[in-house]
Amino acid sequence: MIVMFTDFGCHGPYLGQMEAVLRREAPGIDVIDLVNDAPRTDPGHSAYLLAALARWWPGGTVFLAVVDPGVGGRRRPVVLEADGKWFVGPDNGLFNPVAVQRGDPVNWFEIVWRPPQLSASFHGRDLFAPVAAALACGKAEGMLRPWEGPDLSAWPADLAEVVYLDHYGNAITGLTFRHDREGKVLRAAGREIPQAGTFSEVPEGAAFWYCNSTGLVEIAVNRGSAAQALGLAIGTPVAWVA
Amino acid sequence: MIVMFTDFGCHGPYLGQMEAVLRREAPGIDVIDLVNDAPRTDPGHSAYLLAALARWWPGGTVFLAVVDPGVGGRRRPVVLEADGKWFVGPDNGLFNPVAVQRGDPVNWFEIVWRPPQLSASFHGRDLFAPVAAALACGKAEGMLRPWEGPDLSAWPADLAEVVYLDHYGNAITGLTFRHDREGKVLRAAGREIPQAGTFSEVPEGAAFWYCNSTGLVEIAVNRGSAAQALGLAIGTPVAWVA
Amino acid sequence: MIVMFTDFGCHGPYLGQMEAVLRREAPGIDVIDLVNDAPRTDPGHSAYLLAALARWWPGGTVFLAVVDPGVGGRRRPVVLEADGKWFVGPDNGLFNPVAVQRGDPVNWFEIVWRPPQLSASFHGRDLFAPVAAALACGKAEGMLRPWEGPDLSAWPADLAEVVYLDHYGNAITGLTFRHDREGKVLRAAGREIPQAGTFSEVPEGAAFWYCNSTGLVEIAVNRGSAAQALGLAIGTPVAWVA
Repeated sequence: MIVMFTDFGCHGPYLGQMEAVLRREAPGIDVIDLVNDAPRTDPGHSAYLLAALARWWPGGTVFLAVVDPGVGGRRRPVVLEADGKWFVGPDNGLFNPVAVQRGDPVNWFEIVWRPPQLSASFHGRDLFAPVAAALACGKAEGMLRPWEGPDLSAWPADLAEVVYLDHYGNAITGLTFRHDREGKVLRAAGREIPQAGTFSEVPEGAAFWYCNSTGLVEIAVNRGSAAQALGLAIGTPVAWVA
Repeated sequence: MIVMFTDFGCHGPYLGQMEAVLRREAPGIDVIDLVNDAPRTDPGHSAYLLAALARWWPGGTVFLAVVDPGVGGRRRPVVLEADGKWFVGPDNGLFNPVAVQRGDPVNWFEIVWRPPQLSASFHGRDLFAPVAAALACGKAEGMLRPWEGPDLSAWPADLAEVVYLDHYGNAITGLTFRHDREGKVLRAAGREIPQAGTFSEVPEGAAFWYCNSTGLVEIAVNRGSAAQALGLAIGTPVAWVA
Repeated sequence: MIVMFTDFGCHGPYLGQMEAVLRREAPGIDVIDLVNDAPRTDPGHSAYLLAALARWWPGGTVFLAVVDPGVGGRRRPVVLEADGKWFVGPDNGLFNPVAVQRGDPVNWFEIVWRPPQLSASFHGRDLFAPVAAALACGKAEGMLRPWEGPDLSAWPADLAEVVYLDHYGNAITGLTFRHDREGKVLRAAGREIPQAGTFSEVPEGAAFWYCNSTGLVEIAVNRGSAAQALGLAIGTPVAWVA
């Protein structure tokens, strides 16, 4: 399965062209549009969403991840292999939390293959999609060269910030839920927010945090928008109350 | 064919995860994203849109319908079988108009199967999608138990309200078109709205109602937004002028 | 491969119904949602975006293009064959730039086939999708009749206007990039805009034009929205500075 993770939006014409390359080069392999509204031109926050989502998928999955404001510049096209999953995209930090969160060693590669025609602005279609398709078909040999990987020293395993606002206005943080956080209070935007198990446990309009279906700490309002009600945005800091 | 009807929005990451389960569990079966912007956390209005849309699809179709604000609470996970079509989702009214509109008896089931891991907030992915996939493959035996069904006494066959606003600003009502309504005037938001055959029959900017491609009474403005021009919202009452 | 180009939006229920017809009538053939946010009810501008995008796709591709404000009226349902690619949709100008930009003769057809049930407002589902599926399967014989084609005299090969605003706020014009434009300055909305190779070549917030991945002249702002920063909209005129 090839999973697309982008900031392209759900409108055309970028996602469809990239998907067309995958369909042509990897016939018979499922292609899923997982996230098309990753924080726009913001690989730093997108990276924590991708790392958390990726845990749910089985080994063999190829993630084609394109949040790439530096396209056409000098950033390196790379592949990360971790837990038997593949991540294809630009080396701008997008895959760093995946690597940091793994206990085991991971394998980094530089993409050395180049297509006959490479546009300046759409490497998702011209460079990354053909490599993702080749990986999914087991035919990427010769396209990659081992690489020592990026400097990860500035990348914490968890990011104590809002990293994504979903369609309902729920605010997903970069904090992985752990059982020793059970019952703690979270502070965000000057508010102290208690935990709940899920939406139906709190009154309408009440704010709470919970462990979401991706395993991340998420701030929500029952039948309301936490983003609007609390004034949360991507990058808003959050902290555990001591 | 499996048809997804949700309020998840066209952005990730929910639709893609649910689709991935379907692709894995029902390989080779087509999956269609029919509606992803059903009235948000509003099964009552979503239900009339779903019932009307479902009529067009052939027998054997499996509708995976998730408008589920009570997820994680005590609402029952159910399956409805009507006219050889299957509806999988929460028992919160979402399937009641389908049952009410059918003249023939329908079959209700409670989902008794549970997955090894069930998140508190995403039964679409963890519970309903595997059941929908199993139904599409004819392998749901043992997952379901016959159930007498919900109390339908408060559910009219038609709902005299706006139930959906589309991308163009057209306002779809919960009224099924019938030939004895031909030529009648509809009242909504203080305006009397005449019938027309379709958009190209009225001047630009003119409001009219017509029988839409789903068989519902719909209020539209030629090359404009009826929602904006007339101030229509989901839940706005409509009535036939005597 | 069948490629959908519409102004339906990424929300339901129109795209899904049209896709369902294609899946049923052309089993095993890939269907791509290329553009669902073509300029709304505006075939004149949509046409230049479609013509440019179509160049990238291989021969045999079937474009199902529905930007059709005159649906249900007297506009003709047509098919254009150009460079071995097929275009199916309404005769409202949507395919005229494809024909004008081709040096070689093209073939026009009128769709004479009619479905058993034809809704007044959704020919995309009822008329155009079955014809597109039949073309993709090589079974459209008898559905089409040769036609002399529309009057193209009012259709320039290039349109010196903004024809599309993408998700990032980039403004795509109807001007095809040519090497003799290299280094020229473009005027739009009272501003003089220099060329750059791509985003990463200019400072954040700077406006520039470049040859985009579709081969069109596009106005962009690095890590910003050109539409907002410069006040560009669909139809905004652009001109080369002499």
